[in-house]
Amino acid sequence: MWVFGTCIMKLMLSGWPKLLTVVPESCCLILTGIFVGIIFYITNTTVLSPLSSTIFFFCMLPPIIFNAGFFMPNRPFFDHLGTILLFAVMGTIFNTICIGISLWACGLSGLYGFQISLLETLIFSALISAVDPVAVLVVFEEIHVDKVLYIIVFGESLLNDAVTVVLYNMCDSYISLGPENIEASDVLSGFASFVVVALGGTMIGIFWGFLTGFVTKYTHRVLVIEPIFIFIMSYVAYVNAEAFQMSGILSIMFCGITMKNYVAENVSTTSLTTVKCGLKVLSNGSESIIFMFLGISTVNDYHEWNTAFIALTIFFCSLYRALGVVLLTEIANYFRLHQLNRVEKFVMSYGGLRGAIAFALVLLIDPKRIPHQPLFVTATISVVFFTVFVQGITMKPLVEFLKVKREENQEKTMNERLHDKMLDYTMAGVVDILNQLNSNKIRDKFKQFDYAYIRPYLIREKKHHEPKIC
Amino acid sequence: MWVFGTCIMKLMLSGWPKLLTVVPESCCLILTGIFVGIIFYITNTTVLSPLSSTIFFFCMLPPIIFNAGFFMPNRPFFDHLGTILLFAVMGTIFNTICIGISLWACGLSGLYGFQISLLETLIFSALISAVDPVAVLVVFEEIHVDKVLYIIVFGESLLNDAVTVVLYNMCDSYISLGPENIEASDVLSGFASFVVVALGGTMIGIFWGFLTGFVTKYTHRVLVIEPIFIFIMSYVAYVNAEAFQMSGILSIMFCGITMKNYVAENVSTTSLTTVKCGLKVLSNGSESIIFMFLGISTVNDYHEWNTAFIALTIFFCSLYRALGVVLLTEIANYFRLHQLNRVEKFVMSYGGLRGAIAFALVLLIDPKRIPHQPLFVTATISVVFFTVFVQGITMKPLVEFLKVKREENQEKTMNERLHDKMLDYTMAGVVDILNQLNSNKIRDKFKQFDYAYIRPYLIREKKHHEPKIC
Repeated sequence: MWVFGTCIMKLMLSGWPKLLTVVPESCCLILTGIFVGIIFYITNTTVLSPLSSTIFFFCMLPPIIFNAGFFMPNRPFFDHLGTILLFAVMGTIFNTICIGISLWACGLSGLYGFQISLLETLIFSALISAVDPVAVLVVFEEIHVDKVLYIIVFGESLLNDAVTVVLYNMCDSYISLGPENIEASDVLSGFASFVVVALGGTMIGIFWGFLTGFVTKYTHRVLVIEPIFIFIMSYVAYVNAEAFQMSGILSIMFCGITMKNYVAENVSTTSLTTVKCGLKVLSNGSESIIFMFLGISTVNDYHEWNTAFIALTIFFCSLYRALGVVLLTEIANYFRLHQLNRVEKFVMSYGGLRGAIAFALVLLIDPKRIPHQPLFVTATISVVFFTVFVQGITMKPLVEFLKVKREENQEKTMNERLHDKMLDYTMAGVVDILNQLNSNKIRDKFKQFDYAYIRPYLIREKKHHEPKIC
Repeated sequence: MWVFGTCIMKLMLSGWPKLLTVVPESCCLILTGIFVGIIFYITNTTVLSPLSSTIFFFCMLPPIIFNAGFFMPNRPFFDHLGTILLFAVMGTIFNTICIGISLWACGLSGLYGFQISLLETLIFSALISAVDPVAVLVVFEEIHVDKVLYIIVFGESLLNDAVTVVLYNMCDSYISLGPENIEASDVLSGFASFVVVALGGTMIGIFWGFLTGFVTKYTHRVLVIEPIFIFIMSYVAYVNAEAFQMSGILSIMFCGITMKNYVAENVSTTSLTTVKCGLKVLSNGSESIIFMFLGISTVNDYHEWNTAFIALTIFFCSLYRALGVVLLTEIANYFRLHQLNRVEKFVMSYGGLRGAIAFALVLLIDPKRIPHQPLFVTATISVVFFTVFVQGITMKPLVEFLKVKREENQEKTMNERLHDKMLDYTMAGVVDILNQLNSNKIRDKFKQFDYAYIRPYLIREKKHHEPKIC
């Protein structure tokens, strides 16, 4: 019924194209959700809370992230991986610590009218400081900014999940331990666990990605199970990572990134079309339902409104996002050839939308241990609504006003491609002579390794040494 | 995990093509299921009974039947609808009554060593006499018999569901009433309810089919939800029919038959490919899992073996299937232009496979009211295994031996098509002059009505008056 209703809603919205050019679809869906929620509230309909954390993390999020990984443009993603990681890791930690301490410090002055401990503000700031992939995806796909900007903000939103989850779990276990029992080793082990969670998730994803390539090598006799394999194995990658307490998001994303190179060559055209279209359908459907549910979940009795706390949260979120971006681009630009300019910095900070992941995480907080949980829920919804509505709606006019570089949709000509390829090889050669290590060389080495040792085992037909032009 | 395991199993089977030419895949999957079941049994793994009636009827059956409806060749199906209905309705009633009475009569002689009432044998014979669409589909698709034979047996297996469910519910309610309280009106109302269940299900299905056509007329702006609509609305048709106690199988089948004419012209090529391939994937997956689960569910402690009862069930099932086919083809041939000959009669009776629907129905029997339920379960599994293994495996050699007309896979030439069309129109004209009513005339009238009143409302582009050649 929810899927059906959401589809009908999307269909009705599509009949009003003028509205959609001004207000992003996500906002319309949230508003519809609020409307439905109000009807439920008035009529006292007892709906099972539709957006539970379990449903969100195990049904709705995986297709969205898998879709992102499967359609991720590999080249720009890995070219900008350094910058993305800097923002995802350092940016999120910076935001969490700054927002947490600032909120706590303001609490000390008695502004909120209640006492709040540093650990409580930190657990809240951990979940609120992560940029949300779904919200970013929806808004950035509508405005078509330049690929570099898109990949940096979207990549950050995908990779900061591991940081968020680790920081969140760290604070959660510190609260269980009790603040007086925390030792330096606990803090260190927390930061170490970040590496494990992120790398572990990535490794599991890559493993399942290769395995999917290997399995699809043999599915040509039973074409009908090809699409199932691709979907199921990516989901297994997610569940497998979660089962080992690793980052499922990173796992399913890298599973998609890895498998697409091999799967696309193994499976039949029909299966590939089905997988691609099916993925788009599933992820778009999930996104829509998430926004709808977000609206519905807003209308209930369990809110705790505190103007000072919520206003300060929104203020600090915006402030430290901008500060973090400015500081970190300084560092990034030091290593980058393509310098991130002022306009790009602005879009990056303005595009730091929060979304459903924060909401799902705040629902996971146990109100018995953290009595301020209802306030956190209200504050999270406020921040999400603020970013999605205010930033989401004004983003497009601002991008147009600031003349941000838009994505060129045209395909590269054969000539451009040939020159790009030649330049790549030349660069790899130059770097090799200089005995340095940069992305060109790594890419070149990986390609050699891939063609020599990976592809023969994962791809059926041995047509890989012919250039595409043949 | 089940889906994953089944896919791996299918993949492994596909690597052994020689086995598959002798043993149908369904048999291999059942054997695998039994093997897995034995492992579970030995290791005392407490698995949730994987093939519960709810999962079967609400998750696995709908995609299979929808797939059947969506890919149903409309022309032969409606051309042979009379014969199909004769077999589906009269054949099933004949089988149910004969098997039930025979089993009960043999029970009177004390052959089984226990007493069994007529109503009990009737409820069992109701569920065991229906030919199973999944089993028929799997076996007939592998041997590629002539389209007429295929459509008659497969159509019967689809349409007899309504009869089976009504007969089953009738017997069930008579048992609740107590045999002494049954009045003539109960029997009559039971037979009347068959008409309601079948026609109601069909109407609901056709309604949702038209509605899907209507909705997809407007989805060209949001292509991404097209496949969802098609799947969801067919499922809603199923659930809607079941909610009103109508035949869900007939509903989803006619939903598929109705929608495909309009949907295929409305949606984009990518969406159509996705829907078609997705349907094949889902239905094939469901079929495989059903056979696997059937094997697993076989291995448990709740069996009651009674050689006489089970042997007689198998004997009567085969006997009355053959008798029914012979009697009913006599009637059918009286009205048919294409006479069903001896070989076809044989294939029709030999192709009367039983399957998972019977198994799911027997699980629905309440052992508290009908203490012989464990025996019925064992007998049902025995009949299913007998038909699937013995008849399924010997079918192919027999069909080859008897030189049964196989399906010609080649497409009709343009010339043949033109002549077919011209003959159709001529026939419709001749019949019109003679003022008779036959399938040619009905088809012609429906086409006129369709083009004049239905298509304009359900199809976006008005390209329907151009012949396909343009």
